[in-house]
This record gives sequence, structure tokens and C-alpha cells, in this order.
Amino acid sequence: MSIERVAIIGLGLLGGSLGLAIAERMPKIATAGYDADPNVRLRAAERGLVDRVCDTPAEAASRADLVIFCVPVGAMEAAAIELAAALPTHAIVSDVGSSKQSVAKALAAALPKHTIIPAHPVAGTERSGPDAGFANLFSHRWCILTPPEGVEAQAVATLRQFWESLGALVEIMDPAHHDVVLAVTSHIPHLIAYTIVGTASDLEDVTQGEVIKYSAGGFRDFTRIAASDPVMWRDVFLNNREAVLEVLGRFTEDLSSLQRAIRNGDGDALFDLFTRTRAIRRSIIEQGQDDARPDFGRKDH
Amino acid sequence: MSIERVAIIGLGLLGGSLGLAIAERMPKIATAGYDADPNVRLRAAERGLVDRVCDTPAEAASRADLVIFCVPVGAMEAAAIELAAALPTHAIVSDVGSSKQSVAKALAAALPKHTIIPAHPVAGTERSGPDAGFANLFSHRWCILTPPEGVEAQAVATLRQFWESLGALVEIMDPAHHDVVLAVTSHIPHLIAYTIVGTASDLEDVTQGEVIKYSAGGFRDFTRIAASDPVMWRDVFLNNREAVLEVLGRFTEDLSSLQRAIRNGDGDALFDLFTRTRAIRRSIIEQGQDDARPDFGRKDH
Repeated sequence: MSIERVAIIGLGLLGGSLGLAIAERMPKIATAGYDADPNVRLRAAERGLVDRVCDTPAEAASRADLVIFCVPVGAMEAAAIELAAALPTHAIVSDVGSSKQSVAKALAAALPKHTIIPAHPVAGTERSGPDAGFANLFSHRWCILTPPEGVEAQAVATLRQFWESLGALVEIMDPAHHDVVLAVTSHIPHLIAYTIVGTASDLEDVTQGEVIKYSAGGFRDFTRIAASDPVMWRDVFLNNREAVLEVLGRFTEDLSSLQRAIRNGDGDALFDLFTRTRAIRRSIIEQGQDDARPDFGRKDH
Repeated sequence: MSIERVAIIGLGLLGGSLGLAIAERMPKIATAGYDADPNVRLRAAERGLVDRVCDTPAEAASRADLVIFCVPVGAMEAAAIELAAALPTHAIVSDVGSSKQSVAKALAAALPKHTIIPAHPVAGTERSGPDAGFANLFSHRWCILTPPEGVEAQAVATLRQFWESLGALVEIMDPAHHDVVLAVTSHIPHLIAYTIVGTASDLEDVTQGEVIKYSAGGFRDFTRIAASDPVMWRDVFLNNREAVLEVLGRFTEDLSSLQRAIRNGDGDALFDLFTRTRAIRRSIIEQGQDDARPDFGRKDH
């Protein structure tokens, strides 16, 4: 099966980047897109995020070989119901959501007769909306597919090929395992970042102006991810609750033991942890998942 | 009083950057440097981090108008004792340490007759050692001076002028207040980053390879600061214990209430916090303390 027409539902950072990436790397594929916000549709048309911006999800979905939902995970089911009647039966249904068990359930409820292969490209920036996307977002980033049991191998191969053509590295994973892995590498880091930015702005002894002025000491790295889209992240935490709470439990245990080490003046315990964590950074850079330049090449003044 | 000769004790990221910045912006000042590690001294001489690399701290300090300790805060007192006899009585004594009450005490114990003005340039990268420094490190970054009560105003003005000439913005602050502000904007973010990187590498269900592969989901930002110098950071936590434990207590309270919100499915509480934290990011960028480009201009592939 070959993909000739792709429908993209939701034209924010992910949906927009997807449209631009297809146009750049697979120009023969026709893209149609829809967003529930008329202003986003307008801007998507101006930027040419997809070949055709449609006024209804059904219009975007009709004749599609592949539909990809790029909306917050809590909005997937409603979005899928809206186009269910119009979507050709042969179409593959996928998404870009950050939790996979809940999405699989939501899409299966809305589109029980279609081939559903949830997907998660592990890529993003702190920006959101139709102006945020760019064609290289997925380049050299991992895209995790979580096909349900019994799905046709051919459809999985087609979707894998599609993401690889966009420059992504593809991995197949069990959805429950995905949800734990991403709780660690994405959800908990975001939760912690949101929390510390909130804590800092609520302190009585330290003004917000001071927090901002002296943010180069480390805090600013947290503000970047704490500037991510609030609706998207609210939905992630509500939809990956169990894995998030499990990993959070481990994190708070570890934090308590560091707290105790500081209280007791146990320098060796601190030094051991601080040494161990350097090696992971090195591997991330070696594998091309981050930039080795100090400050990632932040601007000098 | 004018500064003609500066002694830099410790030639890692901060000391090396200081030497390079002086050479670039105040080339008339003569710099002499010392590091306890002979390999660092060798490399410092090769890179020309200071005009003269000395084999003893006393040699570097003799004839200095200003000595700046760029060693971990736990090593300040011993380093100061080593050069006490050689340091001219008119010399101003300062440092670049990340906690200020403990440093003030350590330097005063070692050099009771000198004018001591502790300082903290809030700038750095995750790198350390004599190859890490660069001349622009302090440019448009804040440098906080914490002069003790009763110190000569003229000496404070001289040190302020010195840092401003290096491109820094200077603020005068009470040392106890400094220690709380930096606990929030620097120490706790580092502690949290070290913790989550440790938690991630200890999970049984998720391999270290998976953590590295999918780090672009947010985790990689934490690994950068968790790659910072272990000795420096051990000393910071041991020397700013009270402020760190106080802010950490607030953070864990806030984290518990988010945990509860997730458990109870309270989307509104999550959304409210996630919206609030965006504004702080905006201010940090407006004030030039971070780079607005997505991913700070990380390399595309």
C-alpha cells in the first residue's frame, strides 16, 4: 500500500511541522489539514503548512490514506468521532500524542473499523501554535510506533517507511512500556520544571524580578520546558497518570535521600551521584540527541 | 585605587574565563594565575589563560592588587591560607563562589587583615577545566557583590568597576539574601536535575539506552546541568545547606500538591500552573538572560 494523501488534524507545532516535512521530503504526497480554531486555519493557509486547509475535519479526511491526529491527547477521541463517517475504510489512523495506552483506547472507541497504529515522534520545542512548526523537527529524532496486537504488519511497515522518509528513526514498542519510558524522559521532567518555576514565583523572600535576573544559574533551562503548551501537558498528565505517579514516587524517594545527605553533610553521597550523572550526558551527545556546544550555542552578547 | 595586577587562584571554567576576559577587555592589567593541579597549570599556559602561570599561590599573589579565588567553595579557606603571607596588605580579596555566607567566613578566617568582598558572577556552562573557559562568559550576565558591613565603599566601587569592564551587570546584595536567591535560581535546579538523571538511570523497567534515545522529550535539558562539575556542586550544597533545605522544602510541598492533582484528575489545577509559568519564561527572554530561538539554536540535522 502506498500513501498518496495524508490528512493532518490539528495544525500546531506538531501538525504544522508534519505538513512542512512532507512537502519538503515527500512532495508527491498531497496533504489536507484541519484545525478547530479558525484563526489557526487562516495562519496555516498563509504559511502553507498543508496543501489544502479544510473547513471541516470530514473534508480533510475524505480520500485520505493516512490520517494523523496532532491534537492534545485528551481531544483525540472527539476529533476522531468528527471525521469517522468521512474517513475511507482503508485509511491508516495514527497520531503524535505523548501517551499511548489512552490514545489507543480513544481512537479505537471512535474508529472501531479502522487500522489504528498510535505513534509518538519524540521531538518538540517549547513553542506551540501554527507559527511554531518547521520541516526539520523530526530529523534524527526517534518516532515510537505502538501497534496494537493483531494489526497488519504491512500497515506498520507503511507507517514506519513514512516516518523514516521524514528523517525520523523508528522504534516499535509496547504501549505500556512506552508510557513508562516517556514518563521518565519527558513527562516527569516537564512536571518538575513546571513545579520549580511555580515554587520560585511564589516565594515571599525572593522577588520574581530576582528570579528572572539570576536565571542563568540553571533556572532558565527549566523555564524553557515550563513554557510548553498548557493544554497539551495537562492532558498528558491526566492520560498517563499511573506511569507518571510511579516514576514520580521514585523521584521523590531519591530526592529525599539527597535531602538527607545535605542535612547530614554527607559529601561523598553527593559527589558519587554528581559523578555518575555526567556519563549519561556524554552518551546523549554521542548519539546525536543533543548539541555538545556549551549552552547549545546560545547567543553570546 | 586602580587595579594593575590581578591574581587568579584556580584556572578552571571560571578562572580561565576571567583571565581571557581581562586580556580581551582590560589588556593593561597583568594577570598571574595558579592552580593546584600541575596539568591544569600546563594547559593554562598553553592556552594563555593568564599572562603568567605560577608554580605556587604565593608567587601569583605577590604584588597583586586584587586576588580572585576561583576554586570550589569548600577549598577557599585552604587556598587563601596558602597565599596569606605573600599577599600585599592593600589587595582586595574576592572570589566567584556560588554561596556567599560561608565564603565570607572562610576568607575572613584566612585573611583577617585584608579587604574582602565576596562576589558571584551568575554565569557558567556545564563544562569544567582549563579548556572550558571563554572571554565572553560574563558578558551581559549579573555579578552579585556581597560586601560585609563596614567595608570601604571605595573598594566596593573598584570591584564593581572591574566586573562592569568585563561586560557584567553588577548588583550589591546582602549575603544571606544572595544565598536564598541562588538556592532558587541555581542550586535547587541543579539538585533536581542531578536527582532525576540518577532516578532515570536506576529504574529497572527502563534501560539506560532508552533514556538516552528518547531524551529529546525534555530529559536532555536536565542532563546538561547534571553534567556540571561534581566537586564544585558538592561544595555548594554543603556550604549553602540552610537555604537549600528551605527552598527544597517548598519545592517538595508544591510537587506533592501537583501529585495529588494528577491522582485526583484535577485538570484545572494543572492547567492553571502550566499557564502561569509561561510568563516567567517570556520575561527571561525579554531581559536577555536566555535565547528565544527554539532549542536555543541547537543544531538541526
